Amino acid sequence: MITLTSDFGSPYPAAMKGVIRHHTDAEMVDIAHDLPRGDPRAAAFWLRFVLPEFPPAVHCAVIDPGVGTDRDALVVRAGSHVLVAPDNGLAMPPARALAGESAEGEEGGNRAADERDVEAFVVDAGEPASETFHGRDVFAPAAARIRAALDGGPAASTPEEVSEALAAMDDLSPAPDPVDLVLPDPSVERDEDGDPVAVEGEVLAIDRFGNVVTNVPGELIRGRDWVRINEELTPVAETFGAVDPGERLVTVGSHGYVECDVNDGRGDGAFDLRPGDSVRIVADNVSL
Amino acid sequence: MITLTSDFGSPYPAAMKGVIRHHTDAEMVDIAHDLPRGDPRAAAFWLRFVLPEFPPAVHCAVIDPGVGTDRDALVVRAGSHVLVAPDNGLAMPPARALAGESAEGEEGGNRAADERDVEAFVVDAGEPASETFHGRDVFAPAAARIRAALDGGPAASTPEEVSEALAAMDDLSPAPDPVDLVLPDPSVERDEDGDPVAVEGEVLAIDRFGNVVTNVPGELIRGRDWVRINEELTPVAETFGAVDPGERLVTVGSHGYVECDVNDGRGDGAFDLRPGDSVRIVADNVSL
Amino acid sequence: MITLTSDFGSPYPAAMKGVIRHHTDAEMVDIAHDLPRGDPRAAAFWLRFVLPEFPPAVHCAVIDPGVGTDRDALVVRAGSHVLVAPDNGLAMPPARALAGESAEGEEGGNRAADERDVEAFVVDAGEPASETFHGRDVFAPAAARIRAALDGGPAASTPEEVSEALAAMDDLSPAPDPVDLVLPDPSVERDEDGDPVAVEGEVLAIDRFGNVVTNVPGELIRGRDWVRINEELTPVAETFGAVDPGERLVTVGSHGYVECDVNDGRGDGAFDLRPGDSVRIVADNVSL
Repeated sequence: MITLTSDFGSPYPAAMKGVIRHHTDAEMVDIAHDLPRGDPRAAAFWLRFVLPEFPPAVHCAVIDPGVGTDRDALVVRAGSHVLVAPDNGLAMPPARALAGESAEGEEGGNRAADERDVEAFVVDAGEPASETFHGRDVFAPAAARIRAALDGGPAASTPEEVSEALAAMDDLSPAPDPVDLVLPDPSVERDEDGDPVAVEGEVLAIDRFGNVVTNVPGELIRGRDWVRINEELTPVAETFGAVDPGERLVTVGSHGYVECDVNDGRGDGAFDLRPGDSVRIVADNVSL
Repeated sequence: MITLTSDFGSPYPAAMKGVIRHHTDAEMVDIAHDLPRGDPRAAAFWLRFVLPEFPPAVHCAVIDPGVGTDRDALVVRAGSHVLVAPDNGLAMPPARALAGESAEGEEGGNRAADERDVEAFVVDAGEPASETFHGRDVFAPAAARIRAALDGGPAASTPEEVSEALAAMDDLSPAPDPVDLVLPDPSVERDEDGDPVAVEGEVLAIDRFGNVVTNVPGELIRGRDWVRINEELTPVAETFGAVDPGERLVTVGSHGYVECDVNDGRGDGAFDLRPGDSVRIVADNVSL
Repeated sequence: MITLTSDFGSPYPAAMKGVIRHHTDAEMVDIAHDLPRGDPRAAAFWLRFVLPEFPPAVHCAVIDPGVGTDRDALVVRAGSHVLVAPDNGLAMPPARALAGESAEGEEGGNRAADERDVEAFVVDAGEPASETFHGRDVFAPAAARIRAALDGGPAASTPEEVSEALAAMDDLSPAPDPVDLVLPDPSVERDEDGDPVAVEGEVLAIDRFGNVVTNVPGELIRGRDWVRINEELTPVAETFGAVDPGERLVTVGSHGYVECDVNDGRGDGAFDLRPGDSVRIVADNVSL
């Protein structure tokens, strides 16, 4: 299987699929092609969320604000999974999640084990046919040739077999210093009893509805009625319909993180939050 | 084949696909993932329109405003088709359409035959991994395991074989009282000669362009030039371009029902109509 | 393989897929279903860009402002590729690109060779089940039956074999006079040394972000800092981020043509350009 992720909209991903079909008849599955444009961090967040659901596969992810510059094209092995992406860090958070899963047989394996099972290669792409569409000219063909080099694909291969197959490919060489990207963890302030009283988090992504996805785990607000978001008192709700149209709410998204939303409206505007902004969440009148 | 329908946008459906691939390599086909959020009735309308085009398959449909509550997860067999959906009624209108088709070999078979060939089961989902993403944690795995339990899939199975396979599954038990949902029929007023003079219908769905889809069959307006929509005189047109940009029109959508639209604009705003609102259509100066 | 292209949004294309599965289990790949509504010229542009990336396949493309009129349904063979589309010209630019590729083994083969390898048929569709949804009732079944008539599909067939298979189908007859559509070429004005000083181009398409795609090849502006777009001085940039949000820029899109864009905004509004409008590009203070 080859999964495809981009910020291209349509019809560009179809061109990538056409190219892939010249190399392999492996199944192609779209992850998303409407990710925030040019935002490797948002892509890293979503891929870390989605890819661990898949059996081992080749994942081609092109969110590439550096297209046309001399940034490298990267192949990252994580267990038996293979990510193909520009060298801007987006592959690293999902790679660590995938390697942890391989090493431990479950999500959230320990970091040391993860890192031993992640290795990165640079793709020698020669002279791409275009300066602007490396999804078609560099990343899709690389993903397709890697898939074609693995009999039965990643799902039928051990991490060692995948590693050897990649090492044997002429156009791959070890990446000396791939760009890393670490999705920030929130910091939790606790009272003298050790109970949490406030969380200092960060906006990871804005989705297409304007919902503001933070890095604050949902369990920190579940069961509460009100919290202050950057000082503004906001109801905690399980569904949008719990507040009137146009009203703000805080909820836990399907990804498990705290979201700042507006019923029938856009949370990014109402809360004035953009990716990378910090979000301070304090429980109102009760310790958080 | 497993079809997938939701109001999730992206990339959530991809997580469902990853989960499915742990159980079966059956083909996956997307119906839509941009259906109106939290609106089981709109989903029922669209699935009743689309699913009868398919050979027998497993259809996983997650429009689920009750996620996190104690609503059941349902499996509904309709002929050789299987629907997997939350117990909010959305599966019932398409199930009746699919069963009618199986029984009669054509759409719109008689209702009695339909109902004999629809049976519902409750899924024992145990403790789902999340409170918010049952598409991934409950519905996708149930659909995948049902597909895997049927050699060759629903398309190669008789209704009896599908029924027996479902009855034999450990985590399914007969649903004593599944929620039903009936899409309303319009009422037609006729003159003394029996000719229709007015139709009292209802808004079934608003599509993403703001077009207002009613439950009034298109043949009731075809061939007319003008009708009154809730008293407002409106031209009947076959194409949007027949009126100027910004102007209102009434047309017959690809689904065969009357739509209230605006060329280059939104019909829901111009006609002030929402799902569930009633729509009275009266021919102007001619009997309808 | 069958590729699918339309302006239908969702869930209509799924109905086409259901119909196809009654005839063949060939792979189905979506090109795009959000193309500009009712605009065969934009569809021709995008298909000419995307389809040559694919191995030979059946391509079903339904952008059909004439649905419900007596326009024909067309089948166009181009090398081993087959296009199925309404007879409004949209199939011709991609067909010429595909035939050129077949004849020459590379893109941009000579026009004479192309035209010898393009042939068109009219589909006898009988009485379609609907007046409004010929994607489901005419084009999808035609594409599926053509694919089913070719053992191994177009990719395993020579152009001659595809031609014979089409000629042998009962419901196809030679198209005496299919509608043609030619995407305009820009005219380049040169100084006495033969260097280009200005280009008179045309808007081919507006994408969903409001970016204005012209027919001016990107190499005519690459390396320049500023150009005048219809007299307005505009910076040439490789990425949107090179200008402030809300500011205009000229760039080369992934399709290789000059685009008139706005960072975080809509180029069609800012430049006041619509499909078919002419665009004059003049280098500022330097010969273009």
